[in-house]
Amino acid sequence: MHFPAPLRTFQETMLPAVEEAMQAIVERAHCQADDGLYHMLAYHLGWQGEGAGPAAQGKRVRPLLLLLTTAATGGQWRRAVPAAAAVELLHNFSLIHDDIEDRGDTRRGRPTVWKRWGLPLGLNSGDALFTLASIAVLELHPPTDAAITLQAARILHQTALHLTKGQHLDIAYENRPTVSVAAYWQMVEGKTAALLAACTELGALLAGASDARRRAYHEFGRMVGLAFQAWDDYLGIWGDAALTGKSTTGDLMERKKTLPVLYGLEQGGAFARAWANGSPRTPEEVPALAAALEADGARAYTEATAASLTGEALQALDKANPQGPAGEALRQLALLLLKRAS
Amino acid sequence: MHFPAPLRTFQETMLPAVEEAMQAIVERAHCQADDGLYHMLAYHLGWQGEGAGPAAQGKRVRPLLLLLTTAATGGQWRRAVPAAAAVELLHNFSLIHDDIEDRGDTRRGRPTVWKRWGLPLGLNSGDALFTLASIAVLELHPPTDAAITLQAARILHQTALHLTKGQHLDIAYENRPTVSVAAYWQMVEGKTAALLAACTELGALLAGASDARRRAYHEFGRMVGLAFQAWDDYLGIWGDAALTGKSTTGDLMERKKTLPVLYGLEQGGAFARAWANGSPRTPEEVPALAAALEADGARAYTEATAASLTGEALQALDKANPQGPAGEALRQLALLLLKRAS
Repeated sequence: MHFPAPLRTFQETMLPAVEEAMQAIVERAHCQADDGLYHMLAYHLGWQGEGAGPAAQGKRVRPLLLLLTTAATGGQWRRAVPAAAAVELLHNFSLIHDDIEDRGDTRRGRPTVWKRWGLPLGLNSGDALFTLASIAVLELHPPTDAAITLQAARILHQTALHLTKGQHLDIAYENRPTVSVAAYWQMVEGKTAALLAACTELGALLAGASDARRRAYHEFGRMVGLAFQAWDDYLGIWGDAALTGKSTTGDLMERKKTLPVLYGLEQGGAFARAWANGSPRTPEEVPALAAALEADGARAYTEATAASLTGEALQALDKANPQGPAGEALRQLALLLLKRAS
Repeated sequence: MHFPAPLRTFQETMLPAVEEAMQAIVERAHCQADDGLYHMLAYHLGWQGEGAGPAAQGKRVRPLLLLLTTAATGGQWRRAVPAAAAVELLHNFSLIHDDIEDRGDTRRGRPTVWKRWGLPLGLNSGDALFTLASIAVLELHPPTDAAITLQAARILHQTALHLTKGQHLDIAYENRPTVSVAAYWQMVEGKTAALLAACTELGALLAGASDARRRAYHEFGRMVGLAFQAWDDYLGIWGDAALTGKSTTGDLMERKKTLPVLYGLEQGGAFARAWANGSPRTPEEVPALAAALEADGARAYTEATAASLTGEALQALDKANPQGPAGEALRQLALLLLKRAS
C-alpha cells in the first residue's frame, strides 16, 4: 500500500510514537525466572527474531486511523497514543489466537507464535497481549479526565466482546452446510467492522467530539470495515492476483463461505448444485465454478454491495466532517482501504 | 468446605448477589445468528447443561473474600458486587484456558469446555469470558467515583498480567529437568497469590480504605495464596486422602514440580537420584519415593514453610484490622483456606 502525502507525513510522525508506546507496555511482560513471554510477544509484533522488521509488523492501519481521527477533530493526537497502542495490541492478540483456532502456520511471512513455541505457551501469550491492550488504554492520563478514560476502556472491551462473538460465528459456520447472507453480516460486524469502528470512535472521543460526531465517526469506521470485507471477498475470486497479491483460487479451493458464495448458494442454481457435489476438488475446477457463480449473479451482486457500502462509508465520513491536513490524510486512508479493487 | 456462622450468613447473602451480577454480564454473550457462545459460558459457570448446580459452580471463594473485605472495612458491599463478579469471571476465564493448555478432560466433575465444543470454540469462549470480566469491573457506578473505578480496572488487569506470567512459568518449567525453589515462588506468586491479593485489595479500595490498610489487605490475600499453595503441595504427597479428597500418589506419579520435590532435588540426596532415574514409574513406587523425600528433609521443610506463611497471612490480617461480624467471617474464611492440613 503506497501512502501519498499528506498521509505519509502523518504516518511517519504518528506511527513511531505508537510503536514506542507499545514497546513500553510490552516491557511489562518481562519475567525474571524465564523471559520467554516477552520474547514471544516481541517476535509476534515484528520487533525481534528472524524476519523482524516493517514487513513483520504489518501496516498499523488501526492506530493510524485512530490518531488521524483525533487530529482531524481538533484534538491533540499525542494524548491519544495510549488508545492507539491499545487497539493495535488488541488486534495482534486476536491474530495470535486466530492462528491457533485456524491452525495457521505462517503470519506476515513468518512462522506463527504457536507453531514456534507450541500451543500452550502460544495461547497464553495471546492472553498476555490482550491484558496489555487493556492496560494500555488505562494509561490515558490527565488532562484526559477519568470519566473519558473509563469510556475509552468500555469501548475497547465492548469491541473485544464483538470480536469474540464474530470469531465464534466464523468457527461455528465452518461446520454448517450453508449460512444466510444475514448471518454472514453478523459475523463480519464482529470480526472486521467492530475494531475499525472502535478506532474512529475512540479517536473522536479523545478529541472531545460531540456525541453526534462520535456516532458519525463510529459509522464511518464500521462501514469501512464492511466495505473492505466485501471487496476482499470479491477479490478473493475475481481479483487480479498480480495486483492484489492474493490468489484467486484460494477462497474457492478452501470452500470459504464468502459473500459471493453465500449469495450463490441462496440462488439455488448451477453454482449451488456444483458446490453441493463437493466442487472444487482441484485448482483446475476453480475457473468453471467461478464462471457458474458469476452466471448466477454473484459477481454483480458482490460488486454492487461493495460499491454501495463504500458510498455509505464516504457519506459517513462527510458527516463526521474531518478538518485540516489530518482530515485530508484520513480521506486518503479511507480511499486506500476502500479502493483495493482498482 | 463447611462454613460456620457468621461466615455462612454472609455467604448466603452475598453470593446470590454475585451470581446475579455475573448472569447479567454473561447475558451480553448472546448472539442472534448462533447462541453457542452464551451456552458455553453458562455451562462452564455451572448454570446450564448436564451436571449444572452448586457443585459445578465451585465455591466462589474469591468474590466472597472481596465482599467480606469491603464489609469488614466499613464499606457497603453491594456497591462492590461488580468487582466481585469481575474477579470470579477472571478466575473462570483462566480455568477455561488452563484446561486447554493442560489438556484437562474434566473440571468440577464435568467435561471441560474445549472437550465438549472443540479447541477453537473453547479457546474463543475463554477470550469472551476474559472480556466480560473486564466489562464487569467497569460497571462500578457512582457513587463510586470514576478515578476509583479506573484504579479497580488497573488492579484487575495488572492481576491478569501476573496470572499469564505465572502460567507461562508453569508451562515453561515442565520442560526443564529442575527448577529452583526461588523460581517456583515466582510462578506461585502469579498463578495463585496475585488473584487472591487482588480480591482483598479491591475489597479495601472499594470501602475507601487508606493506602496503608489497602497494602495490608493486599499482603493478607497474597500470603493466603502462598500458604494455600504450600499446604496444597504438602497434602498432595502427605495428606490424608480420606480427609482432603485428594490423591496422595497423583502429584508424584505425574512428576509435578511441587515445593517438596524442588526442595528434595536441591538436596541432591537419595530422592534426587531416584527422581533422576525416572521414579516413580508405577503407583507402587510412590510410598518409597515419598519416604526418601521425607528422609531428605522435604516434609519438615514444606510443613514449616506452610506454617510460617500461614503465620504471615494472619499477621497481615491483624494489621488490616477487619471489623464487626464481616471481620469475624473474614478470619473464619482465612482459617478455612489455611487450615486444610487439619
